Parts: sequence; structure tokens; C-alpha cells
Amino acid sequence: MFIHDDFLLQGPTARMLYHEHAATMPIIDYHCHLSPKMIADDHRFRSITELWLDEDHYKWRAMRANGVPERLITGDGSDWEKFEAWAATMPYALRNPLYHWTHLELKTCFGITEVLNPESARRIYDRCNELLAQPEYSARGLMRRYGVEVVCTTDDPIDSLEYHQQIADSRFESKVLPAWRPDRAMEVTDPCVWHQYVDTLAQLAGIATDTYDGWLQALECRQEFFANHGCTVADHGLGAFFYAPCKPSRVRDIYNKVYNGAYLEGVEVQQLQTAMLLDLARMNARRGWVQQFHFGPLRNVRTTLFMELGANIGVDTIGSPSQAEPMARFLDCLDQEGLLTKTILYNINPADTEMVAAMVANFQDGSMPGKIQYGSGWWFLDQKEGMERQMNALSLQGLLSRFVGMLTDSRSFVSYPRHEYFRRILCNLIGADVDGGLIPQEELPRVCQMIEDISYNNAKRYFGF
Amino acid sequence: MFIHDDFLLQGPTARMLYHEHAATMPIIDYHCHLSPKMIADDHRFRSITELWLDEDHYKWRAMRANGVPERLITGDGSDWEKFEAWAATMPYALRNPLYHWTHLELKTCFGITEVLNPESARRIYDRCNELLAQPEYSARGLMRRYGVEVVCTTDDPIDSLEYHQQIADSRFESKVLPAWRPDRAMEVTDPCVWHQYVDTLAQLAGIATDTYDGWLQALECRQEFFANHGCTVADHGLGAFFYAPCKPSRVRDIYNKVYNGAYLEGVEVQQLQTAMLLDLARMNARRGWVQQFHFGPLRNVRTTLFMELGANIGVDTIGSPSQAEPMARFLDCLDQEGLLTKTILYNINPADTEMVAAMVANFQDGSMPGKIQYGSGWWFLDQKEGMERQMNALSLQGLLSRFVGMLTDSRSFVSYPRHEYFRRILCNLIGADVDGGLIPQEELPRVCQMIEDISYNNAKRYFGF
Amino acid sequence: MFIHDDFLLQGPTARMLYHEHAATMPIIDYHCHLSPKMIADDHRFRSITELWLDEDHYKWRAMRANGVPERLITGDGSDWEKFEAWAATMPYALRNPLYHWTHLELKTCFGITEVLNPESARRIYDRCNELLAQPEYSARGLMRRYGVEVVCTTDDPIDSLEYHQQIADSRFESKVLPAWRPDRAMEVTDPCVWHQYVDTLAQLAGIATDTYDGWLQALECRQEFFANHGCTVADHGLGAFFYAPCKPSRVRDIYNKVYNGAYLEGVEVQQLQTAMLLDLARMNARRGWVQQFHFGPLRNVRTTLFMELGANIGVDTIGSPSQAEPMARFLDCLDQEGLLTKTILYNINPADTEMVAAMVANFQDGSMPGKIQYGSGWWFLDQKEGMERQMNALSLQGLLSRFVGMLTDSRSFVSYPRHEYFRRILCNLIGADVDGGLIPQEELPRVCQMIEDISYNNAKRYFGF
Repeated sequence: MFIHDDFLLQGPTARMLYHEHAATMPIIDYHCHLSPKMIADDHRFRSITELWLDEDHYKWRAMRANGVPERLITGDGSDWEKFEAWAATMPYALRNPLYHWTHLELKTCFGITEVLNPESARRIYDRCNELLAQPEYSARGLMRRYGVEVVCTTDDPIDSLEYHQQIADSRFESKVLPAWRPDRAMEVTDPCVWHQYVDTLAQLAGIATDTYDGWLQALECRQEFFANHGCTVADHGLGAFFYAPCKPSRVRDIYNKVYNGAYLEGVEVQQLQTAMLLDLARMNARRGWVQQFHFGPLRNVRTTLFMELGANIGVDTIGSPSQAEPMARFLDCLDQEGLLTKTILYNINPADTEMVAAMVANFQDGSMPGKIQYGSGWWFLDQKEGMERQMNALSLQGLLSRFVGMLTDSRSFVSYPRHEYFRRILCNLIGADVDGGLIPQEELPRVCQMIEDISYNNAKRYFGF
Repeated sequence: MFIHDDFLLQGPTARMLYHEHAATMPIIDYHCHLSPKMIADDHRFRSITELWLDEDHYKWRAMRANGVPERLITGDGSDWEKFEAWAATMPYALRNPLYHWTHLELKTCFGITEVLNPESARRIYDRCNELLAQPEYSARGLMRRYGVEVVCTTDDPIDSLEYHQQIADSRFESKVLPAWRPDRAMEVTDPCVWHQYVDTLAQLAGIATDTYDGWLQALECRQEFFANHGCTVADHGLGAFFYAPCKPSRVRDIYNKVYNGAYLEGVEVQQLQTAMLLDLARMNARRGWVQQFHFGPLRNVRTTLFMELGANIGVDTIGSPSQAEPMARFLDCLDQEGLLTKTILYNINPADTEMVAAMVANFQDGSMPGKIQYGSGWWFLDQKEGMERQMNALSLQGLLSRFVGMLTDSRSFVSYPRHEYFRRILCNLIGADVDGGLIPQEELPRVCQMIEDISYNNAKRYFGF
Repeated sequence: MFIHDDFLLQGPTARMLYHEHAATMPIIDYHCHLSPKMIADDHRFRSITELWLDEDHYKWRAMRANGVPERLITGDGSDWEKFEAWAATMPYALRNPLYHWTHLELKTCFGITEVLNPESARRIYDRCNELLAQPEYSARGLMRRYGVEVVCTTDDPIDSLEYHQQIADSRFESKVLPAWRPDRAMEVTDPCVWHQYVDTLAQLAGIATDTYDGWLQALECRQEFFANHGCTVADHGLGAFFYAPCKPSRVRDIYNKVYNGAYLEGVEVQQLQTAMLLDLARMNARRGWVQQFHFGPLRNVRTTLFMELGANIGVDTIGSPSQAEPMARFLDCLDQEGLLTKTILYNINPADTEMVAAMVANFQDGSMPGKIQYGSGWWFLDQKEGMERQMNALSLQGLLSRFVGMLTDSRSFVSYPRHEYFRRILCNLIGADVDGGLIPQEELPRVCQMIEDISYNNAKRYFGF
């Protein structure tokens, strides 16, 4: 059997650690892109194609690389045709993380242990659809199946949070909390789109956004609203860290300029966004929230497909390495003000790995264990090699034991086996160190504790869930 | 024996894959720097020193690092003295790829299994020279010995291709095709040298190159000539990707300026070269050719030796990581025009590995499998670690199965064992995944197919040989 | 036992190489930050806390990350309280190099094989202090214990070298030599601090430093003084390599400007420092010294702690990757003048690994083996992974056999087990290659020699000790 009990677990200690200490811990998925509406509605999936292929741009990229025409990826192909095209891609995706994820999902969600390929495609398609027709395969059913204790979705400040309210009212066993992602409020490069956004923001907050201070107050008002819905986590997506401070009066002038519809110069964008991001980070600190920074991607690089299909369709990529200096300056500015809250940094270019792992250590202030976190392997790095690289760098530059561990960052209700994947990789890494004499046998009880902590306890404590 | 049957093959599956599926596939060497004249003349080598040391700047670097004076590297030392200096360097080159290549070449070319060192030097020197005196050790003999089906040389647009014609007329069993490398046509930083070049180009094409449009037409004329000699591959060597588009009228003005002998400003060079490279890439697309981009080296960094010996003498180096954005913009511009042809990207700085592997995936358009390729470990990365890194990144960010595999990029008639080296490393990597349970046993027949594809079939299909 | 005889040694050849060829070689520690005064005074340590925690910002970082308040790190906590806080951090530092270093030091210095954790803390604290009270645990006693043949400290040109003189007069068995580190003489970004420095320099040299030429002559005078104290090594710490040459007259103008108290523009700083560093490198060459460049860190990034505690307190970090071009140009300029002396390059960002390994090879001039060295894993990279990465890159891009090996770069008298750590890692790496068939068995005697060379002989020859 491909995905057997000891999948990825190469030594005896790895196996013991996984089976006795990692496997049964509940899941805290503190950053994902699940649809709150689908949870509120307890969505039923029409087919495995909907569940797997309707939104998964990781799979779309693999299919395009395999020569599959767009009609069978994002076009008007039937569910079966699309699934068949995916199944035909599978054998060519050996060694790609999708190969492991797919078979983990087949096994843990559907009990299917057969390998997916053109020969098995129809059988697997029919069996999955048969199961998806059953009520326990609804959105909530899937979350129950995987023992999900908490998820944090990713929400815009202008979101009504109505679905979060519905979920809370329904007393669903998993906590489904909003997370604050104010990226669009900072997206001043297109004045027209941004103006519409801040108008909506003004209406919802009941505060005019025609000045920088109004913008900030309106966001504070919405943050209060998010906090009242249980939110304790912010998330910021950046192409790269920037740090171009300027006088408050200049910030206000630039704000007025873009508010009046003018395009900004590059330096103005950087100055305004520096002020905005600092102010948003101060707001996070005043509330004692955790803030996350996901930085480094270059988005929508293939214009033809972006124009046709929009954002998040598989034409985003790894950008150049980040600059250490603006990152350090940004964090230092907040630290000097005593307003650097619990912070997680996630890089997309693995050339940044050690730089970020070392950066994190500078701003640990002794107020709590692991206050500043190096985030788990993200997006293009969310695979065995990426996870190992992140955990090794964190181990060498900081304290792996204090790591808050895995998150899915996913739009899919069936991506929870990635927590299993992560835990197997973690246990394998640590188990090999024990078996190889790099970790003393005498400390095995503490190693077991560390596995439980990274799998679950650290996140629970860190986020205060 | 050092180079035994299972050299580099650590597990049972690796051994099976190599011996049963990789070892006997023919060689397609789609990018090299062999001398067409030497093939046309069926050159006979005066000694192992000529074959190994006359042009191999990899070996020269190692000898310099070992304290060998230039006289015994590129100077007037005798063949034996130079070989002796190389043999004395060997024991200090343990772990350098030259160590493995040397012994692979000794074994597969000369049947010598003794280790090269000062004690064995004279025996090995004499035996190699004895064999090289035999007719089957001529340039063509060596290609036959290694089962070379196709080679693509690297040729300038102003090359007469007379030797390619001679080879074609001689009905040599290996196909020897020209490849189009128009770098010098773009090399506008030295107006005087460049002007001589475009004058020659004008004469050969019968089209004046005193305007940008003339330059382009002359190159199109030469490209037609190359196509008529069987060329289907272009290659472009870049320090880094750039993307500085400007109006056609400005391109023409800058062209006129340099044509009239003036030195260009940095931004002018970038603008003119952006236009040139885009136009050359459009030409490649219109012909349906494969285009290769080799980017990232910093050349001729040690001025004293460059002034004395010229280019390609071992003082080129790994440049800084490439910028993701101009690379994305350049490819996107062509994609928007529907003129992004089959493309292979090769990086020289391994810090770019994942960036390039992810970049490639953005421009897969579903029209064919693996249309955009991440090229095999190149130059400084052409070794076990570099190959593994490239294949791992490609696996994780794309589809390894669709990889067109190895090329030598070499000036040497005896470098074909690098294909063997690559195949052993490939089989070892995949075999370990199978033995470690990362690839399902059930798919072993497909894994065997994948090995054959990467070794040979993919390149054959991709290039249309 | 955790640190047993074969710690880190995974195969039979690794064990043989370490025990028979590496373990007993003397130690040459050619770059460290030991206090010459403490050696001159043959300092006695009041406690293990002084020895381990008073200056070790590596440990401070780990403690901060573990949530330890500053009082117990750099504040007024008692020796026991601080040690207890460190012991409580230990179990959370599994996989961090501090974990291995700590236990290596406990074993080799104090004969303690128990694991340090909260339960063992008091026992270990008391036992260490008991031993430290004995005369053979003085500063010199510790150096004797580890077989230290030579150390080079790190000294400012304005240092009196009085302690070096005292040590020399005392006929201590270990050679304790000064090393020349003129960084402060170049630190022109703060004109006021710099002016005080060059005034002191002028007084000591008896040469006015009110002109650039005076500055240079004063430094030459001090270099002579250092040479007379046995110094043969220079060291330069750079944020990054820069190369902004300008006319001598402009250098003098910029010098005058900063000498007169004005702040310099960024480009002026670069131009002046380029001239300064070139001139310092020429001075190194004229004396035939070894020069080291440690480049890449970003220093003092957490302002609050820097303001409170000063420099070197654990808020320095890995900067962005270095630029290949200025590095190449700087070295090339010296090479063109025939004034590139023996040089060691150390990078701090591992994204630079291959770039630096390749860079080194360009400037090998055949005058001696390994003239230009790629320095051992430094600071954040001074651990198993960092060392292996450096040695692998050096192997692939140059000649590992010619490597001058390990240095501690440490302020601690008990950091010598890092040489043992390095040698075990080296032997493990090479042993695995032998056992895996990557290095021929026939050359085992040469491999043994290589281990001895990298452990000791190469440094002895290279530095001329």
C-alpha cells in the first residue's frame, strides 16, 4: 500500500513519535482561505471535481505543464473530463507534492488506497462521488472527520462576517474565526479601485475616509468589529518588505493625492504604504493580536491568463530574495515603540530561509517563548523539502521547540492531511536525529513533548484559542 | 574498482533503473561547443593532453588552485609536463566533479580503471596516447563509441556553416546540427567591435545593417540559412535578464547612435538589447524553434589573465541572483503576443533554483507537455549536487517526467560520460524515492518509462530530431 | 552517553579518519576574539556563568527566544539564576548548535557526561565551579587542556598590544599573536566618533591624520608595530563588498570633508571606503600577510537593546546576499596591481555560498596552493549544516584538500571543542564519500593526509606559523 501507516517515517523513533505523540493531536489551522459561506451553509459537493479542481491552482499549474488544454482545467469541460485530465496528469506528477497530497486525501477522506492514474480514474471518480453524496461528506462533515478544533479564515475589513456569525450561532463544534487581512486598504497603485474600496469602508464604519486619519479610524472601527467576532489574528501579504518613513504631513499629502484620483510615483507608494503598514501593525499590537507577514511572491505574471481568469489562478511565482534591511528597520521601528506584537514571518523564496530565521531571533524580547515566529514552509515551499528546510533553519538559528507549526493556507475542505504530512515529516526529522545520536536518548520524554507542542500545544497557547 | 557497474547507484531500484532503462539509450546532446571543423576533418588527437587540457578551463581552474604555474596550464609546457601537472592535481581534486569525470572518461574511453595520480600518470599517459593514435579514436570515432545520435553545436549567425555542410555531405551516422547563437549581434557595449560584426553580417546577408530594421532583416536572412542547414535551436547567453521596453522610434535612435560609433549609456544598452532580444525571440517563435537562455555568469573577472589569454579561460564566475521581475516581464511580453516558443531556462547561481523552477510553471500554456523547461544543472552546477538540486526543484515546482534532460555544454569529444553521470544520478534519486516509499511500487513501469523519457525520448520529441 | 567517542561519525571510515588522523592534531585558531588581557593575567573564572554566559550572545539569543527576561541574561541576576535560566533553555534548544557545543564543552572541559537540563542544573553548576576554582582551569590552563598551538586575537590598530607583549615575555607555550583589524579607521559614517579615533591614531603613530595620506602613513606605522609583535594576519569586517573607485584628488576631498566634521553622502562614503580598503589591502600585500574579509551581517538591528547594552549583544543578523560584481572588481583591482595577497573570504548569508566558492577560484594565480581561500562556516553558519554546505561548495568549485580549516571566531576560552566538532563533521563527510564509493579506496592514504592537512597542516603552512 502506498500510503501505509509508516509513510515517510524512516526510523523506529520517528514511528514512535508520530503514532504515539503526533497522530492524534487535534488540528488548529490558524491560517486558511476556506469559504465561511460554505461552512455556514454546510456545503455539499456535487463531485470530487468540485472538491479538488474548482479552485486548486496548484493542480492547474501541473495540468498546464502536462499539456492539458485550458478547457479541461478552468473551462467548460464536464466534471468527468476534468477529473480524467487530472488523473492523466498524476503519473507525470511523481515527486511533486500534489502526488502525495492526492493519495493522502484519497486515503484519509475516502478510504481509497489505490493509486490514481488513467486506469483507476473512473473507479475512483465514482467512489468519491458516491461518498460525497452522503451527508457526512459536507463541508462541516469533512472538518469533523479531521478533528479540526479551530480554523481562521482570511477576511477583508469590509467583509460583513455574516457567515461567521451564522456559524457561531449554529454551535458548530469547530471554532471558525475570522482573520483580518487589510491588504486591499493599502492597495493604492490603482487609485480608482482603491477609491471604491475606501468608500465602502467609510460606509461600513460610518467614518469618512477622505483623509489618512479617517482611513485609519475607519479601519480601527472595523478591527473592533472583527475583534467582537473573535478575531485575534491579522495577516498581511506583501510583495516585499519596504521601509520608507516620512513625515506625517507628507503621508497625509500623498493620501490626499491618491484619494483625489491621481496615480502615485513609486516612492510615494512606498512612503504611504510604509505609514499604513506601521499603523496597521500598531493596531495589531494594541489589541495583542498575532500578526502574520506573507512576503515575496510576484503575482499575476502571465497577463493573458490573468485577464481571462483573474487572480489566484496559478500564474503567481517566487519573486526575488527579500532585502534584509527594510525588514529589520520595519520591525525595529515597532519594537522601539513597544508595539511589536506577536509576529510570524513567512518567506516565499527559499534563498531567504536563513536570513529570515536569523531575523526573527533579533526581536525576541524575552516576554514570552517564541514571540516572533518563523512561519512554516509556505505556498511553493509547502512540501517535504521546504518544510525540512524551514525547520532546519529555525532549529539552527532559534528554538524549534517553540514553533507554532503547521497551517494549510488552503481553499480546500480536504487539505487537512497536510497537517498529517507535516507531522510525519517533523517526526521523521526528529526521529532521525535521535536515532543518529544528535539528540540524547535521555531527553526522549522531552522530545515527545516537543512533538505534541509543535503539533498542537504551541499554537493553542500562542494564539490563545 | 573505482568506477564499477554500480557507481553512484545506492539501492536496488536505482541499479535496475540504470542498467535496464538508462544505460543503453542513445545520446542526444542538444547543446555543446564542439568544433564542427574537427568533426568535418575527423580530427585525430596528438595526445591525451590535447584531448583533455588544451581547452578545458574547468581543469585549468583546478590546476591554478593547486599552485600550478600558468606555463604548465596554458603556456609552453610540453604535453607530458602539462599532463603530469594535471595528474599531480588529481589527488587534491577529490570531491570535485573533475575527479569523477576524469575517471569515467578513462574507463569508458580508454578502458583504464586505474586511479590517476602521480604514480600512475606516465602509464596512463602512454596508454591513452597509444590508443589515440588508432583511427577509431578520431573525433568521429569517439562520437560513435558513445552512441551519439544528435549533437547541436553553437554557432554564430555569421558562421558559414561550411563544416556542417561537409559533415552532412559525408553521411556521418551522428546528426551534427548547427544552433543559432546571436549574442554578438547584440553586444553593443563596444561600438567598434560590434560595427565590424554587423558589417560582416550585412555582407553575408546582402542586406545593409545601417538601420535597426536592416539589422533584423539580415538576421532573419541568416536564420533562414541556418534553418536550411537543419537548425531548430537557438541559444542566448545573458549576464542577467533585463526588460526595459521603449518606443520603436527610440530603439531606432539608439541603434543609429551606436551604429555611428558612439558609446551608449547603461539605460540605452538595456533598451536596445530588450528590443533586440524580444525580436530575436519572436523570430525563434515564428520558426517554431526551441530557444535557450543561459543566464547569470559574470565573465572575465580576472583582467590580467583575460588580457593575456582571452575569453573562456577559467576566470568566469557565478554572478548575483537574477531578478524575477524582468524575467517574468520578458516572458510575459512574448506570451501576450502568442510568440513565446518552446523555451529552456538555465541559471548559474543556485540561489535562483526555486525561483526559476516556479517561473517556468507560469508560462506552461497547455499546448504541449513541458513546453517551458527548467534546464539541467549548468556550468558551475553541472555536478551531482547541482543536478540533484535542479531535479528536486523541478520535481517540486513542476513535472520532472517532462524534463528534456542532459546536455554536455562541452568543448570536448570525450565528455559524453557526463550523460552517464547524469543518468546514474537520476536513477539513484528516483530509485531512492521508490525504495523509500515516496513513489508507489505499483507505478514502477511508469517510473521505468520516465527514466527512458528523461534520458532520451523527451529530448527527441521536444526538439523534433 | 550523549557525546560518545563516535559522536557524529556515522561510518567505519569516518571513525577511522577521526580517531587516527584528526583527533590528536594540535589546534591553530587563526581568528578569535579572546581577550589578550585575560591570557596575560592567566584569568581565573569565578563561575561557569562567567565562562559561559557573560559574553556569549549566541546563548543570549536562545534565552530571549525562550522567553527569559533580560535580567537573567545581561542584567543583575545572580550567577546561579542566570545559569538556571540557561539550563532551563537547554531542553528547548535541541537541534540548535548550542546544544552540541554545550555538551561537548561539559565533557571535554569538565568531564561531565550528564545532559544539562533543569534537573541536572545544580549538580553541573556546582561541579563546574568546583573545577574552575582549581588553577588548571585558568585561561591558560584551558588553552593547554585543548592543545592550542597558536591563537590570533583580533586587535585594533590603536591597541597598545601590551598584553601580547606580556604574554610573549611570559613564555606561554601557546603562541598568542595579534591580528590587525582596522575597521574603525574606516568607519566614517559618524564623523565625531571617527575623528576621535584618528586623533588617537595620530598620537600613537606620531603622524598627523589630518589628510588622507597622513591617515595612511599612520596606519602603516601601526602595521609595522603589529608586525613587530608577530602579526601576520589582517581581518576586515564589511556589511557588504563595495567598489566605487574615484580619482585620488576626490578621495582626498572627501577625507577632508569628514575630517572637518561633515556628514558624508552615501556615495562619498562608498568612494572613500573603497580607497581605504584598497590601500589597506595593498598594505597587507606588501607585508605578505593573510587578509580575511568577513562580510554580510547587518548589525545592531534592534535599537532598544543596542542603546541599552551596546554592540555584539545578539541583535546582529544575516544581511541580504552580497553582490558578485563589486566583490570581483575589488579583487581584480588588486590582482591587476600584483597586490592581491593570500585572502580568505567568509560569507554570512548562505545564499552566497556557491557565488563565493566560485569567486575564490578566479583569483587563484598558481603561485601557491589555495592562495585564495573560501573561509569556514562563519557565525550564523558555524554549525553542522553550515560547515557541510561550505565544504561541499568548496569541494565542487575548488579544492577542499587545500582548505585551511576551522577557527573559533569566539570570545570564549572553552570554545575549542568546536575544532573537534568541525573535525568530526569533516571526517564524517569524507568517510561517507569513501564508504559510498565516491572516493576511491585506493587513495585512502591520501584521504588520511587530507584530513590531517585540513585539521592542521594547511593552516600552519598558509599562515607561516
